Amino acid sequence: MVKEFMNLAIREALIAYKKNEVPVGAVIVDENNNVISKAHNLVETYNNPTFHAEVLAIDRALKTTGRRYLNNCSIWVTLEPCVMCSGYILQSRLNYLYFGLEDKKRGSVENGVKVFHSEYIKTDLEIFFGFQEKRIKRIMQNFFFSIRK
Amino acid sequence: MVKEFMNLAIREALIAYKKNEVPVGAVIVDENNNVISKAHNLVETYNNPTFHAEVLAIDRALKTTGRRYLNNCSIWVTLEPCVMCSGYILQSRLNYLYFGLEDKKRGSVENGVKVFHSEYIKTDLEIFFGFQEKRIKRIMQNFFFSIRK
Repeated sequence: MVKEFMNLAIREALIAYKKNEVPVGAVIVDENNNVISKAHNLVETYNNPTFHAEVLAIDRALKTTGRRYLNNCSIWVTLEPCVMCSGYILQSRLNYLYFGLEDKKRGSVENGVKVFHSEYIKTDLEIFFGFQEKRIKRIMQNFFFSIRK
Repeated sequence: MVKEFMNLAIREALIAYKKNEVPVGAVIVDENNNVISKAHNLVETYNNPTFHAEVLAIDRALKTTGRRYLNNCSIWVTLEPCVMCSGYILQSRLNYLYFGLEDKKRGSVENGVKVFHSEYIKTDLEIFFGFQEKRIKRIMQNFFFSIRK
């Protein structure tokens, strides 16, 4: 199951890659294991620095399901979320976060600000990470290498 | 000037109040002191827990100006931003944040996670706060008292 949903997130990342977007993908799954939204980074396409995969996936999940909160749902992201996306996850009350690769620079879950581990943040979020790291790292490296050429 | 822009943000908060939304308002001003966007909390109206005043004001400012980033612009908010909104401010590269009242519970600028004061966050944001606190506090208290009745 873990592999299946992370594969879907990676597929989204690869769609972003083809659009010359930083290749990050996200998928949201409900309590019945149904995929309720998929999204990839669209910062360049919409010229909007907040259009990260997680933000778009959460907005889509809320819109398509009509739910007020995403309790009991899980989000699967290829890369560790930043502060903004961590805040989005918090606000939407997702219960499970699975991310593939750590982002030592801008990640804010297990690195940096560590939003969900802060004593000031009330959350029931369960966090799992370290899935298909080699594959995701290769995709990221290829992308940044190719745009540098 | 400070008073004028904060008044506009308070006016937005009062519009939210009339819609039975938690009364928070935000205004974004560009380098020429032109107001480029105004917004208020719309969480209830759109049944979306991420529709905070700051998020909507930033999205509007980006959309209407066509700018990629909001460098040299300022955001004026009645209440201290939460983690999500702090992340939004960070991503949009706003240079100045003015907020009226501290939010000891969910605020993440001068309270809680203190996003911009973290050693892990790279930012040029200048922060100013404590404007019309009594007035804003009264509006918030009236709102929460009225919905409790």
